[in-house]
Amino acid sequence: MKQPFPFSAIVGQDEMKQAMLLTAIEPALSGVLVFGDRGTGKSTAVRALAALLPPIRQVEGCPVNSARAAECPDWAEVGSTRLVKRPTPVVDLPLGVTEDRVTGALDIERALTRGEKAFQPGLLARANRGYLYIDEVNLLEDHIVDLLLDVAQSGENVVEREGLSIRHPARFVLVGSGNPEEGELRPQLLDRFGLSVEVTSPTDVDQRIEVLRRRDAYEHDNDAFMKTWRPRDGKLRKRIEAARTALPSVATPEQGLRDCAELCVALGADGLRGELTLLRAARALAAFDGQDEVGRSHLRAVAPSALRHRLRRDPLDEAGSTARVARTLGDVFGPYQTAAE
Amino acid sequence: MKQPFPFSAIVGQDEMKQAMLLTAIEPALSGVLVFGDRGTGKSTAVRALAALLPPIRQVEGCPVNSARAAECPDWAEVGSTRLVKRPTPVVDLPLGVTEDRVTGALDIERALTRGEKAFQPGLLARANRGYLYIDEVNLLEDHIVDLLLDVAQSGENVVEREGLSIRHPARFVLVGSGNPEEGELRPQLLDRFGLSVEVTSPTDVDQRIEVLRRRDAYEHDNDAFMKTWRPRDGKLRKRIEAARTALPSVATPEQGLRDCAELCVALGADGLRGELTLLRAARALAAFDGQDEVGRSHLRAVAPSALRHRLRRDPLDEAGSTARVARTLGDVFGPYQTAAE
Amino acid sequence: MKQPFPFSAIVGQDEMKQAMLLTAIEPALSGVLVFGDRGTGKSTAVRALAALLPPIRQVEGCPVNSARAAECPDWAEVGSTRLVKRPTPVVDLPLGVTEDRVTGALDIERALTRGEKAFQPGLLARANRGYLYIDEVNLLEDHIVDLLLDVAQSGENVVEREGLSIRHPARFVLVGSGNPEEGELRPQLLDRFGLSVEVTSPTDVDQRIEVLRRRDAYEHDNDAFMKTWRPRDGKLRKRIEAARTALPSVATPEQGLRDCAELCVALGADGLRGELTLLRAARALAAFDGQDEVGRSHLRAVAPSALRHRLRRDPLDEAGSTARVARTLGDVFGPYQTAAE
Amino acid sequence: MKQPFPFSAIVGQDEMKQAMLLTAIEPALSGVLVFGDRGTGKSTAVRALAALLPPIRQVEGCPVNSARAAECPDWAEVGSTRLVKRPTPVVDLPLGVTEDRVTGALDIERALTRGEKAFQPGLLARANRGYLYIDEVNLLEDHIVDLLLDVAQSGENVVEREGLSIRHPARFVLVGSGNPEEGELRPQLLDRFGLSVEVTSPTDVDQRIEVLRRRDAYEHDNDAFMKTWRPRDGKLRKRIEAARTALPSVATPEQGLRDCAELCVALGADGLRGELTLLRAARALAAFDGQDEVGRSHLRAVAPSALRHRLRRDPLDEAGSTARVARTLGDVFGPYQTAAE
Amino acid sequence: MKQPFPFSAIVGQDEMKQAMLLTAIEPALSGVLVFGDRGTGKSTAVRALAALLPPIRQVEGCPVNSARAAECPDWAEVGSTRLVKRPTPVVDLPLGVTEDRVTGALDIERALTRGEKAFQPGLLARANRGYLYIDEVNLLEDHIVDLLLDVAQSGENVVEREGLSIRHPARFVLVGSGNPEEGELRPQLLDRFGLSVEVTSPTDVDQRIEVLRRRDAYEHDNDAFMKTWRPRDGKLRKRIEAARTALPSVATPEQGLRDCAELCVALGADGLRGELTLLRAARALAAFDGQDEVGRSHLRAVAPSALRHRLRRDPLDEAGSTARVARTLGDVFGPYQTAAE
Amino acid sequence: MKQPFPFSAIVGQDEMKQAMLLTAIEPALSGVLVFGDRGTGKSTAVRALAALLPPIRQVEGCPVNSARAAECPDWAEVGSTRLVKRPTPVVDLPLGVTEDRVTGALDIERALTRGEKAFQPGLLARANRGYLYIDEVNLLEDHIVDLLLDVAQSGENVVEREGLSIRHPARFVLVGSGNPEEGELRPQLLDRFGLSVEVTSPTDVDQRIEVLRRRDAYEHDNDAFMKTWRPRDGKLRKRIEAARTALPSVATPEQGLRDCAELCVALGADGLRGELTLLRAARALAAFDGQDEVGRSHLRAVAPSALRHRLRRDPLDEAGSTARVARTLGDVFGPYQTAAE
Repeated sequence: MKQPFPFSAIVGQDEMKQAMLLTAIEPALSGVLVFGDRGTGKSTAVRALAALLPPIRQVEGCPVNSARAAECPDWAEVGSTRLVKRPTPVVDLPLGVTEDRVTGALDIERALTRGEKAFQPGLLARANRGYLYIDEVNLLEDHIVDLLLDVAQSGENVVEREGLSIRHPARFVLVGSGNPEEGELRPQLLDRFGLSVEVTSPTDVDQRIEVLRRRDAYEHDNDAFMKTWRPRDGKLRKRIEAARTALPSVATPEQGLRDCAELCVALGADGLRGELTLLRAARALAAFDGQDEVGRSHLRAVAPSALRHRLRRDPLDEAGSTARVARTLGDVFGPYQTAAE
Repeated sequence: MKQPFPFSAIVGQDEMKQAMLLTAIEPALSGVLVFGDRGTGKSTAVRALAALLPPIRQVEGCPVNSARAAECPDWAEVGSTRLVKRPTPVVDLPLGVTEDRVTGALDIERALTRGEKAFQPGLLARANRGYLYIDEVNLLEDHIVDLLLDVAQSGENVVEREGLSIRHPARFVLVGSGNPEEGELRPQLLDRFGLSVEVTSPTDVDQRIEVLRRRDAYEHDNDAFMKTWRPRDGKLRKRIEAARTALPSVATPEQGLRDCAELCVALGADGLRGELTLLRAARALAAFDGQDEVGRSHLRAVAPSALRHRLRRDPLDEAGSTARVARTLGDVFGPYQTAAE
Repeated sequence: MKQPFPFSAIVGQDEMKQAMLLTAIEPALSGVLVFGDRGTGKSTAVRALAALLPPIRQVEGCPVNSARAAECPDWAEVGSTRLVKRPTPVVDLPLGVTEDRVTGALDIERALTRGEKAFQPGLLARANRGYLYIDEVNLLEDHIVDLLLDVAQSGENVVEREGLSIRHPARFVLVGSGNPEEGELRPQLLDRFGLSVEVTSPTDVDQRIEVLRRRDAYEHDNDAFMKTWRPRDGKLRKRIEAARTALPSVATPEQGLRDCAELCVALGADGLRGELTLLRAARALAAFDGQDEVGRSHLRAVAPSALRHRLRRDPLDEAGSTARVARTLGDVFGPYQTAAE
Repeated sequence: MKQPFPFSAIVGQDEMKQAMLLTAIEPALSGVLVFGDRGTGKSTAVRALAALLPPIRQVEGCPVNSARAAECPDWAEVGSTRLVKRPTPVVDLPLGVTEDRVTGALDIERALTRGEKAFQPGLLARANRGYLYIDEVNLLEDHIVDLLLDVAQSGENVVEREGLSIRHPARFVLVGSGNPEEGELRPQLLDRFGLSVEVTSPTDVDQRIEVLRRRDAYEHDNDAFMKTWRPRDGKLRKRIEAARTALPSVATPEQGLRDCAELCVALGADGLRGELTLLRAARALAAFDGQDEVGRSHLRAVAPSALRHRLRRDPLDEAGSTARVARTLGDVFGPYQTAAE
Repeated sequence: MKQPFPFSAIVGQDEMKQAMLLTAIEPALSGVLVFGDRGTGKSTAVRALAALLPPIRQVEGCPVNSARAAECPDWAEVGSTRLVKRPTPVVDLPLGVTEDRVTGALDIERALTRGEKAFQPGLLARANRGYLYIDEVNLLEDHIVDLLLDVAQSGENVVEREGLSIRHPARFVLVGSGNPEEGELRPQLLDRFGLSVEVTSPTDVDQRIEVLRRRDAYEHDNDAFMKTWRPRDGKLRKRIEAARTALPSVATPEQGLRDCAELCVALGADGLRGELTLLRAARALAAFDGQDEVGRSHLRAVAPSALRHRLRRDPLDEAGSTARVARTLGDVFGPYQTAAE
Repeated sequence: MKQPFPFSAIVGQDEMKQAMLLTAIEPALSGVLVFGDRGTGKSTAVRALAALLPPIRQVEGCPVNSARAAECPDWAEVGSTRLVKRPTPVVDLPLGVTEDRVTGALDIERALTRGEKAFQPGLLARANRGYLYIDEVNLLEDHIVDLLLDVAQSGENVVEREGLSIRHPARFVLVGSGNPEEGELRPQLLDRFGLSVEVTSPTDVDQRIEVLRRRDAYEHDNDAFMKTWRPRDGKLRKRIEAARTALPSVATPEQGLRDCAELCVALGADGLRGELTLLRAARALAAFDGQDEVGRSHLRAVAPSALRHRLRRDPLDEAGSTARVARTLGDVFGPYQTAAE
């Protein structure tokens, strides 16, 4: 099996890469929604990110990839306690999937007849400690999206049927992609994704040649290609690990809170999830940048991802969401001044 | 498991909090309908209210959370009589739920073959003595909403199939939330909810900062945060308990009845549930306020919640329901004069 | 269990009460359709009427509430012959009910395998000798309404599947309520209901206060309240019983027949069920009034209920059905003169 | 069980009665379609006609009502050869009926496992030698109507599943009623009904009084009423029996054929079933009238029933179908002259 | 059982009769589509044609009507090798038929459990060596029509499920009828029918009288009628048999190919099936006419049937398909000159 | 069984033939989409191409056509190791196919009960090492198309249900045909097909005569016809085999990459799959032409197939996709100069 394309070798698409890195540092951001053109490497990026992260260690045969035998669910009857290494899991959610296949299914009859907890784990079990990728999330049924967001937020999958109850850890980063031209998510659901990014095909010829060259090299001269890029992925991995460690001690000055609130009020973002996500994403970025305090530069950098999908449609404002966030950033924070902030 | 966010720490949203408190005092109000923006903390508030109330004591293993072994249904075959303490239950009704899962399912074949009452209790059993929360109630099928309102009103869940009959207590407060922009409830169903409230995102920056600060503190400095707010929840709990005790003896002067009727006639509210709810809610508020008689201030305070969702659409009156209730309150009671009333 | 609200204590709604009383005297009227606002006490009235009637005596355990063991269906295998007293049954037909649950279901396989008539009786069995109440009948599927009207008319429920045949008595008064704004019944079905009434919320403040006061007294001071009203219900019960006895001997003079026909022709009422219902309802009213002959006053009093739902829509006549019946009554009978008629 | 209302006692509705009598004489007319107002006694007339005909003699227990043991299907395993008398069967086809219930169902598994022809006969079996009545035929699914017309025409019900084949006689007169305002039959299906009639509520007061008087007498003084009308039904029965005998020898002169064709061409009736039905119906009427040759008076009398439902809609001709048939009869045959024809 | 109406006795409808005869000579024409009015004898014609053809000889009990025991499928376990004579089969495809009933069903479980090929043959098996008639083919589901056309073309029915595979011969002529006013076939499907014809009710009175007279004679004086027409059917049968023998040696001169191509290009007929069908149909007609070479008269005679349903809709050309074919024939071949061609 | 029509004998349709040949050389092109008129020989071409390729050698009885016993999946329990020759498989995907039938079905119950991997292989297993042909791919459900494209790209079919997992090789060339007038594929799916071609009926009479003549000769004089064409297919086969060998060593100069990128940017083709496909197809064509480097002539020749289906609709540009690609080729590469490039 060929290794996934290296994350570092992805040309451009900086906002998408930033959003994915932030969820690797702060999983509480609960998911990334990627809007945009087909063929822009969304699926490639998810697989690349998973391969970038250190492999996980898990109990052999544990259906939820747990790191300790004690954490393997009892219904799994995992005999072994041996630890094995495996790559961070990436689970694809196919179109038209049923709820049972997502959550796992409880065989009531068998449970009642034989007194066993007969549970067939689902995709959520397999995604634990990894990524759940949904291509064309806007074509998925609402109640499945709802369920996924619930679990992504709580970190636990609970299956209850007629008094029986199965639960297992299901901590994963949810990545959904979709083309808004093909159907929209209800605002109710949009709001529950932490970050959103927009991707487009590059229009710069040299950048496209670079993409084509790397892709072709990856396919036809894999060994040499990987030798070049693997070390860069290694550096990035260390930086993520450092950021994870630093995150809890990143401070948020009073002005940071005020900035978040003013930005959201100025944008007329519905609800209060916007502020909280903005704050968390900025804190994760600060950690990634090795800084000990959230600053305006962090808020500026993550605001489009954190807020763009939470705006009410304004019939009098023809600008797109991204432009509205940018304009409001200018109104509230003043023009961009990296050094000063 | 982290404790829910404290009810007292919820910033603003006074009407929603008042409505929820009133149902905690007078459960006959049969449910609260919360209209409004996403992300305004509706689900948080229900969980907070449940955590605010004193824990219930129930027979160990009793599927309907009964306080006495004699009240546990016989089909449950609860062996134990030991009492255990547990928090007031909050049950979420998932989108797309089936009737069987709500009411519980009767296994006819087993019942006939083995002569046993084979009943798999449903969500109504688990919600007994607690809260049933329905997010996006307007997306639920009508017959399920109907059924929930029936049970909420009667306090009993009756499952009948082909001559077999199972019944168990199902006393709960029904809280439904919905965004009217995404689909409406039929007037027939609206009318059966006791109270309704409207929530919006606050537009005051300081208030939003306060929300963000408390939320952030709750997440990152939970111990200190809970130490601050737990006592306030304690006081509120005592006040609710006192109001419950006082409620039966709150008097309703003749003028109170007349006020109710005149208000409803002036508003053209359909049906007679409006008056009755108005009266009950005002009485519960009087009890909460420690007063022994219903006054105009109580009626004024609860009229929007009790009547807003019972108005006929008036094509000549462009004002929203809330404004129409307010205007009619002014017409019927005169301008607001707290002291005088 | 609290007793139902007393029929006599219902404020106003005279036409609805009259129609219900007439069906209690002459069940051949086959059903009452109640149009109107929500919350006007339709369901309360049905329960009140059932409680008003003398309790029935039935064989213990008989699934169709029969008065004699010989009349209990053989498939019921009722061992006992002991008679027990029970209130007149009121059965609610839930929205979304299946045909099997209404009629009862025949277990063909078991019947063939074991040679037993395996029948699970349905709601029609339980409604025998009582009332079947359908809230929002206009939301019920047509074929169920059709079936209910068939059984209501024939007094017998016949379930036939592949050569097997089960039948049991199913004599009940059908009461359906509906809000015409939420969907209409096909004229074909409308015509098969005997009587129809329109109910609205009272607009008179004193009447509404009276409703609220009685309702509140019923809830909060039940004992005193019932002591006041129970005797009035008792008197009404005796009058119904007397009317039942007198009904067969109430005479119909030639002019009565002519009045019925002229009224229907003048109204352009479709079909001939109008006349027959008008005649029967008038005769039942005469019996209730203790008179031995049908007079114009009786026809006048019941004509709106008997005919209103049988008019063709007339695009040139903007008056509602009730007004058209009233106007035609004036045209055909002359202005109202109680004494003279 | 009360006897059905006597056919002779039906007031007016001459076209409907004529069409039903003709099918009793010439069953090859394959069905009558009754269009028209509700409550005009369609169902009453079918039952009355069935009761008018002589009772049939059938083998005891034979599921297809056969007159000779040899004709009882072998799958029925009818032990007895005793003949019993029973009224001509009238079978109602309920709305929403399934194909299996109409045709009977073949239990493939049992057939294969035990080698028995396991057939559960359906409504078509029960209707053999009688009437099949479909109220609101326009609401029935097309493929069921199609199937019924096929069987009505062939006189045999064939159920074939996977190589197994059951057949039994199914000779019946199909009577469908429908209100064209509630949905139309496809022309394809209309054409396959032999005759159609239009019924309306009488607008003559005396006629309506007569209907009401007879109906009331039937209900309240049944014995006297039946004594008056039973002899008249007896005479009618004899006349039908005579017509059945005479039918094969009724002659059709060349002019009769030409009249049929000219009428259909002038009317622009689609297809050729019109002529054939016209001829057959006229011949049956001649037999009923005791005449030995078809004449113009017979064609005139049956043309509306035979052709009205076979006209193409003509957007330039606003007259209804009945008027168009009448006008064309005048154009082709000249004005009505009973004696001369 | 009465014999079908004789093919020779069908009045008019020459194009339909020609098309059916051609498929009897050259089955590779894969089907006839009959558009047109109801009641024009489409079904009669199919049955008549089948009865016209010589009876087939088949192995007794063989489910696919094979002529030799060796050709009976092994799953049929036909014990006998005796040959029996039977009429050419005509199978009706009912509306709403399922795919399993058409193709036959494979009982996977039984196959796996007992190692037997458990196959329940379907309608395609019964139609082998005969006709499959679909009334109202435009109301059939697309995937069934598709499947039928596939089998009609390949002459074999293959049922494959999970690795098991059953195949049996299914050579039949497909005849579909439909009223284009009630729904259209997709062009994709139209194109796969070889020939199409349009039928209308005759408007000539004498022709209609003749139809009526023959039909009436067939019904009422069957013996005499059949004695007249049977010999004519006999002659026709011989001519068909001769044409079948002659067909392979009918020559196609170069000009014939050019004529086909020029006609199709001039008409703008999509695809290349038009030419091939035109050529085949003309060749079959030449054989029927006893000629040894295809000439323009044959192409002229079959072009409407072969091409009419393959034209693209041309919004600028208001003429119907038939008129467009006729006009183009004139343009390409010059005016009609029977002798000269 | 007659051999398929020879690939070399297909008249015209050069772009379709080129695209199919390229996929035979470079299967990574993942599929061809054929748009166009019905009856233009799409299905014939697929079968012809499969017959053109050398037969495959596979283990006898292996359900996935593997060349070595070790590669036959263990669930197949293939006893034999004998190799047999068979033609390259062509599998048709029927309309309305289910996912289970495509991927194969896993019998969970059996797997759990007996510990066997009970897998019924599907169409993907049978298509391994061959072609999967989907007629009217635009009528197939999206999730099936999605699944097919996934497998076509990965070369492996993975069926996972509740923790059980079956995988088998599924390397095939996907050929889909569709008429864009009957429904479109979502851009998301279009993009995942490697190449697309447009086919139309030829309008040149001589070319059509040639088609008709060859087709007729194939049908009526098969032996002579095959003798003429088989050698030409043989030559083509050798050229394909040579190209397969040469492909890995075909070089791509820097200018080739730049040409690809500039062309795609100029066309505004969404995503980056366009460049990659263009490059791969040009390389395969160079190999087929026996050249050792990709040149502009190759890019020119394959650009329409590689890019036409990836253009955004441009409302200001009325030219079709093919014309836009041609125009842009001229803009970017200059006018066509075979020799110079």
